[in-house]
Amino acid sequence: MEIDAFQECAGGVTAAQGFTAGGLYCGIRKAKKDIALVRSSPPAIVAGVFTLNKVVAAPLLVDKMQLKNSDVCSAVVINSGNANACTGEQGMKDAWTMVNATAEALHLPGKQVLVSSTGVIGQYLPMENILNGIQELSTKLSTDGNKDAAEAIMTTDIFSKEYALRFPLDSSVITIGGMAKGSGMIAPNMATMLAFVTTDAVIAPSALQSALRIANGHSFNRITVDGDMSTNDMLLVLANGCAKNEEIRENTPAFQQFLAALEYVLIKLAKMIARDGEGATKFIEIVVSGARTEDEAAQAARAVANSNLVKTALHGADANWGRILCAVGYSGIDFNPDKTEISFNDLPVLKKNYEIVLDEEKAKATLSQENIMVFINLNQGPAEARFWTCDLTKEYIHINASYRS
Amino acid sequence: MEIDAFQECAGGVTAAQGFTAGGLYCGIRKAKKDIALVRSSPPAIVAGVFTLNKVVAAPLLVDKMQLKNSDVCSAVVINSGNANACTGEQGMKDAWTMVNATAEALHLPGKQVLVSSTGVIGQYLPMENILNGIQELSTKLSTDGNKDAAEAIMTTDIFSKEYALRFPLDSSVITIGGMAKGSGMIAPNMATMLAFVTTDAVIAPSALQSALRIANGHSFNRITVDGDMSTNDMLLVLANGCAKNEEIRENTPAFQQFLAALEYVLIKLAKMIARDGEGATKFIEIVVSGARTEDEAAQAARAVANSNLVKTALHGADANWGRILCAVGYSGIDFNPDKTEISFNDLPVLKKNYEIVLDEEKAKATLSQENIMVFINLNQGPAEARFWTCDLTKEYIHINASYRS
Repeated sequence: MEIDAFQECAGGVTAAQGFTAGGLYCGIRKAKKDIALVRSSPPAIVAGVFTLNKVVAAPLLVDKMQLKNSDVCSAVVINSGNANACTGEQGMKDAWTMVNATAEALHLPGKQVLVSSTGVIGQYLPMENILNGIQELSTKLSTDGNKDAAEAIMTTDIFSKEYALRFPLDSSVITIGGMAKGSGMIAPNMATMLAFVTTDAVIAPSALQSALRIANGHSFNRITVDGDMSTNDMLLVLANGCAKNEEIRENTPAFQQFLAALEYVLIKLAKMIARDGEGATKFIEIVVSGARTEDEAAQAARAVANSNLVKTALHGADANWGRILCAVGYSGIDFNPDKTEISFNDLPVLKKNYEIVLDEEKAKATLSQENIMVFINLNQGPAEARFWTCDLTKEYIHINASYRS
Repeated sequence: MEIDAFQECAGGVTAAQGFTAGGLYCGIRKAKKDIALVRSSPPAIVAGVFTLNKVVAAPLLVDKMQLKNSDVCSAVVINSGNANACTGEQGMKDAWTMVNATAEALHLPGKQVLVSSTGVIGQYLPMENILNGIQELSTKLSTDGNKDAAEAIMTTDIFSKEYALRFPLDSSVITIGGMAKGSGMIAPNMATMLAFVTTDAVIAPSALQSALRIANGHSFNRITVDGDMSTNDMLLVLANGCAKNEEIRENTPAFQQFLAALEYVLIKLAKMIARDGEGATKFIEIVVSGARTEDEAAQAARAVANSNLVKTALHGADANWGRILCAVGYSGIDFNPDKTEISFNDLPVLKKNYEIVLDEEKAKATLSQENIMVFINLNQGPAEARFWTCDLTKEYIHINASYRS
């Protein structure tokens, strides 16, 4: 698949045919939009991935049951400001109430509605506000509602996150678009994040799930902000078939094209999450090459991306490459430090045999930029992996020392 | 072993008979003591544990060779301000030069000297200053030199770390004392730390190594500041036999007594490192109980202790217990969140079945204290483990954004 064939377009989660959305303030957060709806008509097939945390929030438990009982989804209701996690039986009851109220307001079968929450853990939802919000929102869904929806799922996010693209497939045009949120409690697998992706492709359910699993492994599972895996992580892809293409099945060229496009969208959204990490001032891309396998490359890249010391050094534009090599050293992979080479953007700092070629002045200039690439070449194989993160700043501490207040 | 039998005493690394020490400024750091010597006369048997990082600093490589070739150690030379890590062949040469210069100055065989370094990675040692320092220091060793030595191994540490105790063993009195430094790049296994422990016990070499391994597992491997494992971690125990007790052998009551005392000393030093974590304002003890095994308890405690979000919340005196439960959730152990109970010091916040008994006002007062115990009861078994850490603050960012400057 040529990436050239992807045509970026506006519209985010409503870019694909047959999708509408909306978002508004209902009284969970302080005067910010806090409830969103995404609607598909006709009903869409759906694939999802969920947090691996043993502590799973109520909406995820509800959605897993829904996905077992129904092949299709017509609406997703999402609130921010409260995660409905660690809320026991009351939390489950509230999540079901959100599902049923949405179904009623949109005249849908209850089993066609999914629910999602993000925000503070361990507090009950203000259900009266939410029910009023769902009622009002159900009358305001539109193809222009993508921006409001993307804003309404934000928590500590600074900017809303949307992306969409189109590409030709045989004689049809497929659109894939989505929105995401996240910016703290971000770690693989997965980030503390919500992402909702919509497409008008006609695709077999097993092919959709398979594409999602692969694309997620190369996107949201490759970002980290603070190494904390959330209780609420959720990524859903809805495919409603409005593009009327020939059905995409696994192990076909069409599947490869769809997968490449989906991965492209997910990576775009994942990078936005890393860029918007809590308190972040810099976007950092870690590229580990010369590894024996992609898994090892990813393992090394993850350790570097998760290192508080690397992230504070990059924050301070300090070319402390020793911390980078040190993090690779404790990542658990076997490698030879003598063979390892490191550079920042196009500036080499360490060559083989610990030859330090660091030019402090140039490095300071390079690391003072907003976008930093850290290249680590292990020189022991053909594999490469990328990880995306941000710097660690005083603002992160500020945000998280009083998150609930 | 009754802990009551342990009598705390002064003297740190020189508390035990036959040990002298010293520390002074030689020009590595900026106007702070930066070189230390510990001397044992007679020569001591020695046991050590070293970093598991694949990137291993030159002094550790030298020491591992020394320990292979010699049963005894008469002196340890330690510098701060420069880790002599990632320094290739030049670094190895410099570490050997430190060994040989110390041996010459103290009229010892070269194989009886160990070397240790801590500080910035990837820079060559200023050898002329160091050699002058060793020369001067060799004439100033004394039984009162413990404080100077403990100060000279500090990097970003705020306070120096020493502890010593005595206990009766049969008709003898055994003394165990030590010094340590932290305070960033601290993670199991082990912390970025150096610790040097001395004892006058007569003990079989295999028993000393065995006691060290066990005691280290319950002390330095149970602290974390930032989750970054260093290239220079080293813990040495020297036993010179001056107490003239009957030789301690494994699987004896005397061994159990020695082990308990050694563990007590190491835990004291380890807690000081956690308390002095970079930028820390609070000392935090995580106690996971009701686990099926001690390993699982430790695994859960480690995840909580490593969580940036938990540590920033505790910094802000925010009783965000959801983040604690969330960290246990991604620790990898199997447990039932419904059964889990959490309290801060003596204040319960979460009971079984997600019953939230949090009194925000009382919790604020409790978490505003300098010492915080976080109790997590999994209610699924008999095992317990403790982990020690500190809060994550803006000062940590400040220190580490410009560490090399």
